[in-house]
Formats: sequence, structure tokens, C-alpha cells
Amino acid sequence: MQQSSSPIVVLDSGLGGLTVVRALRQVLPDEDILYFGDTARLPYGSKTAATVTRFVEQIIAFLLPCKPRHVVIACNTATALALPAVRATFAGLPISGVVEPGARAAIVAAGSKSFPTIGIIATEATIKSKAYAQAIHRRRSLARLLFQATPLLVPLIEEGRHIRDPLVKLALQQYLDPLMKHGMDVLVLGCTHYPIYRELIEQILGTNVSVIDSAKQCADDVALKLKTGGLVRAGKPIAPRSEDEQTGTLRCLVTDDPDRFQRLAPRFLGVEIEPPEWVSPDELYSQNRTGALKMPALP
Amino acid sequence: MQQSSSPIVVLDSGLGGLTVVRALRQVLPDEDILYFGDTARLPYGSKTAATVTRFVEQIIAFLLPCKPRHVVIACNTATALALPAVRATFAGLPISGVVEPGARAAIVAAGSKSFPTIGIIATEATIKSKAYAQAIHRRRSLARLLFQATPLLVPLIEEGRHIRDPLVKLALQQYLDPLMKHGMDVLVLGCTHYPIYRELIEQILGTNVSVIDSAKQCADDVALKLKTGGLVRAGKPIAPRSEDEQTGTLRCLVTDDPDRFQRLAPRFLGVEIEPPEWVSPDELYSQNRTGALKMPALP
Repeated sequence: MQQSSSPIVVLDSGLGGLTVVRALRQVLPDEDILYFGDTARLPYGSKTAATVTRFVEQIIAFLLPCKPRHVVIACNTATALALPAVRATFAGLPISGVVEPGARAAIVAAGSKSFPTIGIIATEATIKSKAYAQAIHRRRSLARLLFQATPLLVPLIEEGRHIRDPLVKLALQQYLDPLMKHGMDVLVLGCTHYPIYRELIEQILGTNVSVIDSAKQCADDVALKLKTGGLVRAGKPIAPRSEDEQTGTLRCLVTDDPDRFQRLAPRFLGVEIEPPEWVSPDELYSQNRTGALKMPALP
Repeated sequence: MQQSSSPIVVLDSGLGGLTVVRALRQVLPDEDILYFGDTARLPYGSKTAATVTRFVEQIIAFLLPCKPRHVVIACNTATALALPAVRATFAGLPISGVVEPGARAAIVAAGSKSFPTIGIIATEATIKSKAYAQAIHRRRSLARLLFQATPLLVPLIEEGRHIRDPLVKLALQQYLDPLMKHGMDVLVLGCTHYPIYRELIEQILGTNVSVIDSAKQCADDVALKLKTGGLVRAGKPIAPRSEDEQTGTLRCLVTDDPDRFQRLAPRFLGVEIEPPEWVSPDELYSQNRTGALKMPALP
């Protein structure tokens, strides 16, 4: 596996951020991507802002020696709870998340309706943070927002359950029914795992509700930022291409169970991956004490 | 809150171990209990032996200054993956878990049948560890064992879903049906969360299957160990008493979100608790570097 320095860093608590990587590789096929999945401490969705912020700061500090061109927090919970604090800690480093692009897309999808109703499904922590409410109301103060924490969806997806499983259907119906009663115009999938169930969600909602995939929006946002900043690698054009036209590499680091990550990754990424490398959580803590950042040597 | 030194330490990834505390307080009402819930890094059930062992060792090392009389690993996953390694690390410290007592009780419940069929439901990691298979086959080599990983049960319980929820019933039926087809005699609840759904599990299984609660068995095992070792506090008798006859204290430490822990605790413990104290995960790592164990002062 070859990888240049200055990759795009994508980080997440586990596997979900690979849906962002999938979308990124479509729009930026020549970029090298360094993915970090914090599988020893996942999930983030039931944890506090202080804890999640600390975790994300540790990961970014650990990856700094590879000189990231851009850091993507590909996790709605981490974005919602930690992005402003993390940006302040690493001033000068371009860092983006999934909430703003998702909120922007939701407004576009709501169209010209005076009082659009926008639903958001997400983890308990994302809902509590009010990050989507702030991001949407900053643009459309009259949008009516409906929030639904959907803590079972990540475990259902991680267990490998398919949309044909009656348990998946029942869970989605229980979560979506209260939202549908309010005549929703748009539903934001506010967790990077959820696109896995998009097809069934769209079936349950019917054709009158637009579904926004925050992973796809996040990737488009990063592509635009890099293009605007003249930072696209080797001046290659930004255009969708098929998987086999990739020239950028993907390198994955995880804090636990590389085998499980490799086995489940194709469901999120659409293609197989090389074996991920293991980073002990101890390394994330050690840097703060010794001042020395340890990073596996780039091949 | 008063607490003497030399408490019984009970540790778990989160809330589940409180079912063990509840049973412990029934059989040892005069003992002070120090509970540690590693809520910043929960759950353990999808993680590897190396990672879980490291987490448990950090917690015990952190609590050593309070001179535990006995340490209970009140989590099936942590017991299954880490107990032998942790005992080796802290030689001389009495440490027990939930798997051996659960296995023993399953054998007793299987009675005199020559080839009893024993089912075990547990986390993915507990099932993979084969700890129950070893513990049962050591005593009854001809027992036929049926294993079912049930990764959704903890998230269902943590979301606060009741046994009347159709989603809970469907999930339990999906998990238990394959086991019931094999004419099971005994079912072990191999996770300290699962007693919350015991009533519904027993309804689904019918009266021909004995259900073993590893939390209750674990508490009885600790009481017996302390009694045998002459270590019961102040020579008080071991006898079941009502909650209001407690003289022992309960002090809870958590690595994240004390408010959530306090809110959900009564479901597992049966009574309200004092606000838990927060321990930063950083403290668990720092001790290994500085050699200095930091522990909040006992009140």
C-alpha cells in the first residue's frame, strides 16, 4: 500500500465514517485518505461532549505528523459535540464535519416552502447537542424541526441485519411513525451509519419526503473546500468515476479488532479493504505526557 | 455518604453490574460496595480480549489504594475475556467473576439428566471466548451447549425499552427460537443486563426451561467466599434482609456521564443512588506513566 504524505484524514468512532469515504472517493478519486476508526472506545453516540471532544483531540494530535491536508470528522455525534472545540485546539488546520453540509442540503431540499418541516434522526448525543437545530435555524429560522433519537439503528447495522429483517422494519417504523404524523417534508439521516438503511427508510416515508444523506453532503463539501482552496491533489479534475479509476490510496487505522473492521468495512465502503493497522489507545494518551507523537511509519 | 476502607469492589463496563450489586446487598447487607462503571469506553461486548483486559487492569490498578477486600468483575464479557490475565497481574488480590458461578448453577439446574442441553445467551465477545463452554464442560463433559450472541439486548435495555414493547418481544423471539428448537433444559443469562428481561424470557421459554441469572449466582459466590475466608464485615450474619435494613454503603464511580448513570441505575439496582463521581479516563492511563495512583479521597 502506497501513501503519500498530506492525506485527507477521515475519523470516526468506528465503521460509519466509511460511508463518507465512499462518497469522498467518488468526488476526489485521486486523493490519499487516512481513516481512523476508534473501535476500542466506540460508540460515541451515548457519551458526553467532554469525553467525545477529548477522544477526537487525541486522535487528531496523534495523526498530526502525517500533515493532514484536511480533517473530516465523519461522525455526526463527534461533529455535533466536538467540532468547535477541536477547531479551536488545532487552529490553522482545516477541519470539517457532517452537520453543516447536512443542514444546508436539508434547506435546499425543503425548497421554497414558507414553513418546511424537517425531521432529523440521530444518536441520543447528537439530538441532545442541538447542533442540527442551530445549523438549520441559522439559515431558515421558520423551519419546524422534529427530532428523534434512534439509538438502536447502529447496533442493528453493526449486527449485520438487512432491511428485509422484520426487526429492522419494526424499529424504523417505531422511530419514523411519530415524525410522519407531522407531515414531514425532509428527513436528515444524522448518522453516517444510516445510509445503509436508506432504501427501507425511503419506502416507509413514501415519495413526499426527501431523504438527506449527511455522508454524501459532507463529501461534496470537502471536495468544494479543497477545490476552492486550490488544494486538489496534482490538479486532477473533480468528477465522478467508477471504483477502478481510483488512483488515491486508502489506509485504515483502528484502536481495536482490525479483523472485525476489515470484515464489516465492505458493507459501508462498497469494496474490500487492506487489513487495517492497530493503534493501541495507550498511544493516544502517551503523546500528551511525553510530548512525542508516535505514528506508525508510512510505507 | 460514609464509606470505610476495604470495600467490595464491583466493576463493569456500565450499568449492568448493578444487578450484581443488588444481589450482593441482599446477601451481604453490611458490606460497603465501591462500584466502577467504565461508561466512557462501554460496551465491552464487541471488543477484543486484549483491549478489555487492559481496561479492567487499569480500573483495578486505579482502585487498589482503597484496599479492596474482594474484587468482583460483574460483567460477563470482562470475566470471559480477562479474568485469568487479571488474576495473574494482581496475584494475591481476591478477584472473582460471573462465568464460573453461572456455569455451576446451570449444571445444578440441569439435574441428573445424562445429556442435558444448556443454552447460553451473551454478547458476541463472551460467546466467542468459549469461557462458558470450558466452565460447563469441566463439570459435565456430556452437556450439549447452544450458544446465541444477542448483541441487541443491551442497547434495547439501555434505551429503556420495556418487556411490553413489541420490538423487545420480537428480538427475544428471534434469538431464542433457534435455541428452543433443540429442546433446551437450561438457559443461562450470560450478561448482567439480561435479568431486566427475565420475566419475558421465561414467558417465551415456558416452564420446562430453567433460567439462570449469572448476577444472582455471582453474588452468592462472593458471599460464600467471604464467609469461608472469615472476611465478612463485623461478623454480621449472612441473611437476606429488606432494602431498609442495609447498613453497608454504595459509592459509584463512572468514567462518563454521571447524570445518565444516576437516572438509569434504579432500573438495575431497584433503588435510587447518590450522584456518582466522575473519573476521567485520563486518570486510568496516567497511573501507568507516573507510578502514582490517584484516587478521589474517601469521604
